[in-house]
Amino acid sequence: MEAKENGPNGEQSGRGKVLDGPTNPMVTPLLTDLYQFTMAYAYWKAGKHHERAVFDLYFRKNPFGGEYTIFAGLEECIRFIANFKFTEEEISFVRESLPSSCEEEFYNYLRGIDCSDVEVYSVSEGSVVFPKVPLLRIEGPIALVQLLETPFVNLINYASLVATNAARHRFVAGKSKMLLEFGLRRAQGPDGGIGASKYCYIGGFDATSNVAAGKLFGIPLRGTHSHAFVSSFMSPDEIIDKSLHSSDGSSICEDFVSLVQTWLSKIQWSNSLRGTFGETNQSELAAFSSYALAFPNNFLALVDTYDVMRSGIPNFCAVALALSDLGYKAGGIRLDSGDLAYLSCEARKFFYAIEKEFGVLGFGKMGITASNDLNEETLDALNKQGHEVDAFGIGTYLVTCYAQAALGCVFKLVEINNQPRIKLSEDVSKVSIPCKKRCYRLYGKEGYPLVDIMTGENEPPPKVGERILCRHPFNESKRAYVVPQRIVELLKCYWPGSSDKAREDLPPLKDIRQRCIKQLEQMRPDHMRRLNPTPYKVSVSAKLYDFIHFLWLNEAPVGELQ
Amino acid sequence: MEAKENGPNGEQSGRGKVLDGPTNPMVTPLLTDLYQFTMAYAYWKAGKHHERAVFDLYFRKNPFGGEYTIFAGLEECIRFIANFKFTEEEISFVRESLPSSCEEEFYNYLRGIDCSDVEVYSVSEGSVVFPKVPLLRIEGPIALVQLLETPFVNLINYASLVATNAARHRFVAGKSKMLLEFGLRRAQGPDGGIGASKYCYIGGFDATSNVAAGKLFGIPLRGTHSHAFVSSFMSPDEIIDKSLHSSDGSSICEDFVSLVQTWLSKIQWSNSLRGTFGETNQSELAAFSSYALAFPNNFLALVDTYDVMRSGIPNFCAVALALSDLGYKAGGIRLDSGDLAYLSCEARKFFYAIEKEFGVLGFGKMGITASNDLNEETLDALNKQGHEVDAFGIGTYLVTCYAQAALGCVFKLVEINNQPRIKLSEDVSKVSIPCKKRCYRLYGKEGYPLVDIMTGENEPPPKVGERILCRHPFNESKRAYVVPQRIVELLKCYWPGSSDKAREDLPPLKDIRQRCIKQLEQMRPDHMRRLNPTPYKVSVSAKLYDFIHFLWLNEAPVGELQ
Repeated sequence: MEAKENGPNGEQSGRGKVLDGPTNPMVTPLLTDLYQFTMAYAYWKAGKHHERAVFDLYFRKNPFGGEYTIFAGLEECIRFIANFKFTEEEISFVRESLPSSCEEEFYNYLRGIDCSDVEVYSVSEGSVVFPKVPLLRIEGPIALVQLLETPFVNLINYASLVATNAARHRFVAGKSKMLLEFGLRRAQGPDGGIGASKYCYIGGFDATSNVAAGKLFGIPLRGTHSHAFVSSFMSPDEIIDKSLHSSDGSSICEDFVSLVQTWLSKIQWSNSLRGTFGETNQSELAAFSSYALAFPNNFLALVDTYDVMRSGIPNFCAVALALSDLGYKAGGIRLDSGDLAYLSCEARKFFYAIEKEFGVLGFGKMGITASNDLNEETLDALNKQGHEVDAFGIGTYLVTCYAQAALGCVFKLVEINNQPRIKLSEDVSKVSIPCKKRCYRLYGKEGYPLVDIMTGENEPPPKVGERILCRHPFNESKRAYVVPQRIVELLKCYWPGSSDKAREDLPPLKDIRQRCIKQLEQMRPDHMRRLNPTPYKVSVSAKLYDFIHFLWLNEAPVGELQ
Repeated sequence: MEAKENGPNGEQSGRGKVLDGPTNPMVTPLLTDLYQFTMAYAYWKAGKHHERAVFDLYFRKNPFGGEYTIFAGLEECIRFIANFKFTEEEISFVRESLPSSCEEEFYNYLRGIDCSDVEVYSVSEGSVVFPKVPLLRIEGPIALVQLLETPFVNLINYASLVATNAARHRFVAGKSKMLLEFGLRRAQGPDGGIGASKYCYIGGFDATSNVAAGKLFGIPLRGTHSHAFVSSFMSPDEIIDKSLHSSDGSSICEDFVSLVQTWLSKIQWSNSLRGTFGETNQSELAAFSSYALAFPNNFLALVDTYDVMRSGIPNFCAVALALSDLGYKAGGIRLDSGDLAYLSCEARKFFYAIEKEFGVLGFGKMGITASNDLNEETLDALNKQGHEVDAFGIGTYLVTCYAQAALGCVFKLVEINNQPRIKLSEDVSKVSIPCKKRCYRLYGKEGYPLVDIMTGENEPPPKVGERILCRHPFNESKRAYVVPQRIVELLKCYWPGSSDKAREDLPPLKDIRQRCIKQLEQMRPDHMRRLNPTPYKVSVSAKLYDFIHFLWLNEAPVGELQ
């Protein structure tokens, strides 16, 4: 899908350069709920479709028992609206799906709409965000903006959820570990996998196994081999071309496999390792040798196909030492089963024993990657037990957000025709905060964010050094004065529509990732801890508080006790 | 992506008609893990890439604490391999992603491959399936089949998981209820939503809200309006065109809004309903009236924006009665918050009171849809409390498979060059079952399936009426004789490759759904119950049992106690 050209220079209503469509071509104006079309028709029929509405997109509760969320998915939303236009085929399908009594003129209306009159204000992608504060504010003709509800919420819910999950995994693993996203095969469908790769990278992962995501987003790729590779070999005899040039090209080893076998027996009879293992698996030895012949500079081996300590590690070391003879440095091992804490420590000891026994400098520091059904809890448990893992490959629990598979973003009408609107509920947490709002993050003396505050659109903004009353939106007793040392306005214009505002650029993925990492570092540690984190405060101005409660009383029916 | 034409009549290696590519155009040969390419290179470098390998795709444990799984995702896999071919751009990216030491000739190899020499045998989509028994058996050149691993597992994992989740929801809801999938906005990304709609339909849902899925798959669509629609109206005064033709076109009501208001006051002062509510919300009354004017034949109203019993239900009834005056029949209400059991019963009483009071036949049976964060447990709780809901709209918990967000399908090498292979593990449940196998479902006298049995490829098949010994693959004491009354071979040829087998047709979605519903009905009830279901038996032949254990001993290193 190509962005249509509205302006004389191929510019769109959003101004600036033409934007590609969403990453997934299935994201079309039909990727929405049927009721958005029935409502659009009802608005149109009532002559109400052009009325200017303001919607807030927000969530009500942080995921994973935590007290923060990473906002992601914005770029896909903007690319979606930049290219929002119905095809004739799509209009025909909408016609088939609505009652035949619907008037034909409505489809002409659909044919004409695009997002040139919609404005989108948003928190920057990769930001740390909190419940109730709008992530996006969308303004425009009500019928059209309703059509955007489902795709926007879809594009942001999972993106923010999985980015948050990634950030939480990074928090537990610590800065020094390499984190690899290995989830494609277990993800919820093809672009569940592609989305996971993109948004885990934003949340602080270093690389992915997903080649398509590497191509689409420039994310670094990582991978070694599987158990099938190991078991596909029967014995070293089947390796035909056994020759390997030395790393500097100066010499050639005619029988690399023999060299490996010589090393294996040296290890077997060495002083420090004698008796730790017997005959190793020959299928595995053949597979490792073969892999090393293919990738002498990038030899990484999965060592748990048969038995880690009695076969995988000795076989790996024999191949790594043979490579070392030829000037190559092996990359390391991957453990994919068993007690990862124990096995990584045993492997480390083995590597140090090799370093000492054979004088191969640095062999003890051989890379160890672990990858068996890891999640926040198992990473935490590994830390507590002590381990020697350098890199974690994380799949299922990360990409499916197994601990909590959904974020509950909602899209609520807060104003129409300049009239504030509220949605009530017996459950106070489900009452919406009315009015077109501005949102600020207030920072304290120590540089930490203290509180987010929402105000009415036309209230004077808070000022650095001036005391401001921050009120809980629904609990009258919760309020506090704050004297902010720094103030950041949260919602920026990412799609100006027909207004004269400047459009914020959509930054490259690496910059979004950097923003995320930086903002996480700036948070006060008690908000971030895994156990009983302190909730971050979200507030409204005194004026907005009063207005919410005035409107609430106005709309709620008065009960009669009987 | 178009299927390439191999044969003189546009036929492919798979024979029969040309197949479209996967539903999601992002499913390309690059949608795989990097290690599939590093392995492909290592196989190629070792001259081993053409060796004929057999892989089994299976899962180890049924999801959701149950004892059955619905198999889905097959059609997408077949459409993927029918169109499997690298573009030059994709090959360039693979070249960039692999070490620069990789030989150029490898990329010529990649350029040449397609799936014309791959064979795929599979259980039919929509079948009830069990752990350990292969869902698919894939045979072909090892390097190529490895490349298929990640996309196949990705396409089947979530499809089977969500179809199973849907089937479980249907089981709890009962046959008579309408089940609507409303999950698009909370799904894990755009095609998480589209996949959910497709596979929930297979699992027994009746309709979806997802318009794109309706278009792609012909699934019935359902939807009404949201809270935003209700709160976008201020008062009935803003409705400009208030006229409505009667259903038969014979007359016109010039002021439908007045008619509604008249009915509202009749209800308010009626004998049986007097005092149950006071002044209803006028914004809501306006929204309902307006929606009825747009959809007089399909009037469905969301009644919980302000207060269900004091505003939503009376307002709905007033509009429904006004419509009834004009010969239209209202569709019903939707409840989206609060105590759904209680509110549905109260609403039902109200409807019957209206029927009685005003003599409107059938009004008591007005449709009630419920839709607030429903899942298996809440459906079960509603059943136990008693409720009057006719249709359930289910979103988040259904489509994200919140109770268990991943199915663990794996893809294991079981044979290469006619040599059986095994993957060992300290965890017995992770040991693979070697050999190219045939799989049968054995049925007993009462028509229920009794046991699935796997045999070696060349063993004589089990015969109806003949006693056969079924053994647990890993537990020597678990075995039983079975005299099957009916036998179904489970794996059928869905992609014959270069063999001369006939290719099974890919049936329409409705047929897959019917197969699923029928197979679920045929299961013995104790396997299906939610609490402590009986595990269905999965077995191997005596000959295969012996061979597994021979190979196991052969491959496992012998430990030394120290």
